[in-house]
Amino acid sequence: MTQLFNITILPLDSNAMEQARTRQQQLTKPPGSMGRLEEIAIQMAGITHQVVPTIQRKAVVIMAADHGVTAEGVSAYPSAVTPQMVLNFLHGGAAINALARHAGAEVVVVDVGVAETIQHPLLVSRKVAHGTANMAQGPAMTQVQARAAIAVGMDVAMSLIQQGVDLIATGDMGIGNTTASSAITASLAHVPVALVTGRGTGIDDTQLVHKIATIERALASTKPNTTDPLDVLTKVGGLEIAGLVGVILAAAAQSVPVVIDGFISGAAALVATRLVPAVRGYLFAGHVSVEHGHHVILEQLKLSPLLDLNLRLGEGTGAVLATTLIDAALRLHRDMATFAEAGVSDKE
Amino acid sequence: MTQLFNITILPLDSNAMEQARTRQQQLTKPPGSMGRLEEIAIQMAGITHQVVPTIQRKAVVIMAADHGVTAEGVSAYPSAVTPQMVLNFLHGGAAINALARHAGAEVVVVDVGVAETIQHPLLVSRKVAHGTANMAQGPAMTQVQARAAIAVGMDVAMSLIQQGVDLIATGDMGIGNTTASSAITASLAHVPVALVTGRGTGIDDTQLVHKIATIERALASTKPNTTDPLDVLTKVGGLEIAGLVGVILAAAAQSVPVVIDGFISGAAALVATRLVPAVRGYLFAGHVSVEHGHHVILEQLKLSPLLDLNLRLGEGTGAVLATTLIDAALRLHRDMATFAEAGVSDKE
Repeated sequence: MTQLFNITILPLDSNAMEQARTRQQQLTKPPGSMGRLEEIAIQMAGITHQVVPTIQRKAVVIMAADHGVTAEGVSAYPSAVTPQMVLNFLHGGAAINALARHAGAEVVVVDVGVAETIQHPLLVSRKVAHGTANMAQGPAMTQVQARAAIAVGMDVAMSLIQQGVDLIATGDMGIGNTTASSAITASLAHVPVALVTGRGTGIDDTQLVHKIATIERALASTKPNTTDPLDVLTKVGGLEIAGLVGVILAAAAQSVPVVIDGFISGAAALVATRLVPAVRGYLFAGHVSVEHGHHVILEQLKLSPLLDLNLRLGEGTGAVLATTLIDAALRLHRDMATFAEAGVSDKE
Repeated sequence: MTQLFNITILPLDSNAMEQARTRQQQLTKPPGSMGRLEEIAIQMAGITHQVVPTIQRKAVVIMAADHGVTAEGVSAYPSAVTPQMVLNFLHGGAAINALARHAGAEVVVVDVGVAETIQHPLLVSRKVAHGTANMAQGPAMTQVQARAAIAVGMDVAMSLIQQGVDLIATGDMGIGNTTASSAITASLAHVPVALVTGRGTGIDDTQLVHKIATIERALASTKPNTTDPLDVLTKVGGLEIAGLVGVILAAAAQSVPVVIDGFISGAAALVATRLVPAVRGYLFAGHVSVEHGHHVILEQLKLSPLLDLNLRLGEGTGAVLATTLIDAALRLHRDMATFAEAGVSDKE
């Protein structure tokens, strides 16, 4: 599969990690007392090949697309909200904009498959299709479309990395995309649809029962091969999810860390790690979403979330907020005095 | 008890909270989708009486003191580390300094009871005693000392607030202070010592058994009145814990939010809320420590931690890191566009 997209993803640099671990032991604190922040610094060393890594430039990539399955009434909001929110991102008024300013991250918005035509000078226009087809009636995409959307994500990530971006957070916008994420997760994790299907933007009990039935119908009719992540993505995925798969693969191939957001980004990460398992080392789980399917994904990925704040918005909000914890971990790793430097007695 | 220290702590401003809640409903996101970040903004409105609150100036107050009970061999590090780490704080080389720079907080270090004499131009020298007495052989403090240490904390907080500090994080330094915190927690929560006693800076199994036995002996010999928080603080507490009680009480009285760090700060918060229950509304639990006693404290306080990163250092590290989540919550609350402003369709 690695050859499929002509990329190579290396295991983490164990030498750099070992040296980073040694440095952590010398800093003026009881060993291990900074918990996950120590682990983050060590993982970052392994990703970047630097014993004392830095982050110079962060970006959050928001992949936006529409979903034909919204025709089945699976979402609390109309599809018109997808382009409206894309414009809100470009005007700086959305949650992700506020958090990106807080975290010092650039917001990159990519139209990889919004149904409406959107024109804006700041929009990265790479539309593969005007939304997916309705998965309840047939495959959401052709495999050509899925590969094209993955290629868009790879292009966008490569371009950002060439410009100096050294940390990428993933974000999404697409009314109906929790439906696609539930379908992907149920397929790849081999669990019942009801276990991984939630209320998305806020549907009620009746709508939830209908959403589950719709996904079950889609899986029954499209019959994705659950051992082939690309087939699952094609049949029940989304263009923005495919785009994020590309972002994740390209970043990992370039030794750039990726902070994963919630359920939709998680579904993309699940697909990406099934395509190339070595991707996992390059991932940080920014947060754990209210959507139960996201818990299942994190278990599958064996990733522990950095934040647990009952978020369920997407857009990359949890991921961008979590990048500040990575900043903090690297600041500790870089700035703290050693026992020798500070003249502090080590453990008796 | 409010009269004891001549302060009044008001309930949160329900009007400001209601207006903040209304504002949250109008922002371009599904209602509730930013989870705890929405709750933080609303609580901050209640604390500050501002519908759209801001934080202009943060400080972390580190209260430092020594513990006579270290003579019993309850800690992995010698008491000499207390003044060494105080100097490390003042020189900027400790974990709290790195995180305070990350979070934009001032570090204020107060000697409220370090055994050794420390001289440094940046140190706030308000030593009440050269450490506490050994609680295993008698009361750790006199009630006059406990009250004096609380008054130090109140003075420091009041002075910072007068200078424009509008958010305070609590921090501590004191070899032996998990022993005091376990004793306080066991007393005020009415739970067995073993349930709330952990490894502190890193003792082994044998030392842990000894630490538990030492605390049980201290409680048996000093017999604190478990319905009188001041008596518990006096008999088995610490001067830095008493100092933090004062910081918390004064900040709450001045409508200034307090972000509580881990187990030691938590023990101070437990004492403060038992003295004046209305304090609780002004508190944010920055994180949950590895020390199990801290879980018990958070249950008692009915506070849910903002971070869970397996930290166990103290110094205010978890609290200062958590202040950045409050910044983020306020940024969202202030900066986001409303549905009307952005031209985004609300829920169908």
